[in-house]
Amino acid sequence: MNQQQNGGILTVNQKTLSTTDTGYVVGVDIGGTNLRLALADLNGMIVAKQSSSVAGFNSLDAVMRLVCDGVEQLLQEVSAPRHALKSIAAGAPGITDVSEGIVIATSYLLGWRDVPLRALLEDALNVPSAVDNDVNLAAIGENWAGAARDVQDFVFLAIGTGLGSGIVLNGRPFRGNNWAAGEIGYMRVPGTPDTPREPGKPGSLESMIGGNGIKVQWQNLWSAQNTPLARDLNATQIFDHALEGDPLAKALLQQSAHMLSLVIHNMFLVLNCPLFVLGGGVGSHPALCHATRIMLEQLNMRRPPQVVLSMLGPDAQLIGAVRFALDIAESLRIKVEAT
Amino acid sequence: MNQQQNGGILTVNQKTLSTTDTGYVVGVDIGGTNLRLALADLNGMIVAKQSSSVAGFNSLDAVMRLVCDGVEQLLQEVSAPRHALKSIAAGAPGITDVSEGIVIATSYLLGWRDVPLRALLEDALNVPSAVDNDVNLAAIGENWAGAARDVQDFVFLAIGTGLGSGIVLNGRPFRGNNWAAGEIGYMRVPGTPDTPREPGKPGSLESMIGGNGIKVQWQNLWSAQNTPLARDLNATQIFDHALEGDPLAKALLQQSAHMLSLVIHNMFLVLNCPLFVLGGGVGSHPALCHATRIMLEQLNMRRPPQVVLSMLGPDAQLIGAVRFALDIAESLRIKVEAT
Repeated sequence: MNQQQNGGILTVNQKTLSTTDTGYVVGVDIGGTNLRLALADLNGMIVAKQSSSVAGFNSLDAVMRLVCDGVEQLLQEVSAPRHALKSIAAGAPGITDVSEGIVIATSYLLGWRDVPLRALLEDALNVPSAVDNDVNLAAIGENWAGAARDVQDFVFLAIGTGLGSGIVLNGRPFRGNNWAAGEIGYMRVPGTPDTPREPGKPGSLESMIGGNGIKVQWQNLWSAQNTPLARDLNATQIFDHALEGDPLAKALLQQSAHMLSLVIHNMFLVLNCPLFVLGGGVGSHPALCHATRIMLEQLNMRRPPQVVLSMLGPDAQLIGAVRFALDIAESLRIKVEAT
Repeated sequence: MNQQQNGGILTVNQKTLSTTDTGYVVGVDIGGTNLRLALADLNGMIVAKQSSSVAGFNSLDAVMRLVCDGVEQLLQEVSAPRHALKSIAAGAPGITDVSEGIVIATSYLLGWRDVPLRALLEDALNVPSAVDNDVNLAAIGENWAGAARDVQDFVFLAIGTGLGSGIVLNGRPFRGNNWAAGEIGYMRVPGTPDTPREPGKPGSLESMIGGNGIKVQWQNLWSAQNTPLARDLNATQIFDHALEGDPLAKALLQQSAHMLSLVIHNMFLVLNCPLFVLGGGVGSHPALCHATRIMLEQLNMRRPPQVVLSMLGPDAQLIGAVRFALDIAESLRIKVEAT
């Protein structure tokens, strides 16, 4: 990707890195399906990107090899020497101890437990590294360059296969006492199933409005009498059909929006955050956002929170990883200058 | 009250006020029923207390007169001159802008709107003053000298007539972007009514497990066939009867505990706080705490939060107000020393 295409990023970098600094940082998004890397200069301009499939991967070595090879290729692409790399930050879809640099647990394809990802990155690449939960990084990304630019307090709510949120309080990611703040997949609102959930399995809320949950709901509701549509559709397709007027798809959209509005309502009462950014493949569907706003209004709150769509879309966590890597590079530069 | 009775407070003061400082601070709890004051020395030892009824009061002047007269009497009680008073902090049952010192809105008896309470206290008493929401002060109290001593992250959950919570994150009160963090009276969990709530009226959750809500639930459930008990009981009496085995009272206790466990579960998912302290006249009933713990276990969480009873009981907010007043006195002393 050339600089032209990423022009937007340059203008949003409000940090104080001098333009005379030479060097690059890498942001990594380790997803369940794809591993993506972005190379950015120290002004925050993304100059090269890469994506490879990790479908079926569960070996940590294989993931680490992809990251290392990717970094080399990205540097070559911009003809930069290896020592131009100043830092790297990576996000994984799981609870992550940011201070120790350990991915405590991932669900879905990876299934990692207590992976010392920061140390592995530092050993392999010999640069300062950082790791975080991918949804937290998406919140950092939206805060830096997206729908929550310059906002001090907001929640990034991601609905993809599953469900999670990244919370920013007083302009900083709030990760919780045990790194699990915002892990709302098990939240209980009216309509979530009563049966206790097995740890590691989709939570009550996730089973209703996570991407997989919506798919299962559709299959349960589906009957050829009520819709001409196929029984096997994903959440985004269902919401598309709702927009086109299919009554069963509309009913499921309404149900999802109703539950999502209750989740936002509950989180708003606890956190008193005035802004919620909806992201993730399912969460950023405009029909869901629109219906959720209407449902929130019906709750008759004195000052309902604002609900907006992610501006960075599927790039949110990658751009957040770049921002995190820039922060590390900058804090080290300040340290070096101070000594 | 003599020093003997308050001996416990002295030992918990971990701040650095020197014992050679002479002076006193006052904490005030402006409740819907009673106005209470506590005079403490700069070591945090409470040396005198006072309580007067404000039932039926809605004039701000009358409340201010009670506070000023009370302060004079407390100082006289310990034979301290007027200039020995170093600071005062007051809590009211409503959303409070701590930085501007304004009580934005109170419900129940007071019905205040945008009352500049800090300025009024400073004008009347000529000492540095502070104001906060009463539940936030109760959390500060429990954090200083009660069930959450030295705990960095916890929630104080108060159930009295209504319902509220005070959140402490990283050892500091978290008040939210608009001073309304933890105002959970409108939270929606399975079992709360679906009908939209009128602003200013009891919220969905409050109507089910606030003290008044439980009373109303009892009256709705009550039938002379099912219980020999009276139709007119308050929440604490109902929980007492549950302990004694009345089946209808037991059913209502179970229902309340179930909903409370869902509230704690939801707040825990968002905040990742490992400790919840139950307080308030209804919330600190041991039967409710016990039943709630069992319900939480049934939710099958990986690491459920700990739920404990308030240690300070009805004094929590008053002791929190004293702590807040001490903080102000101390920060001013540090400022004076630095100049």
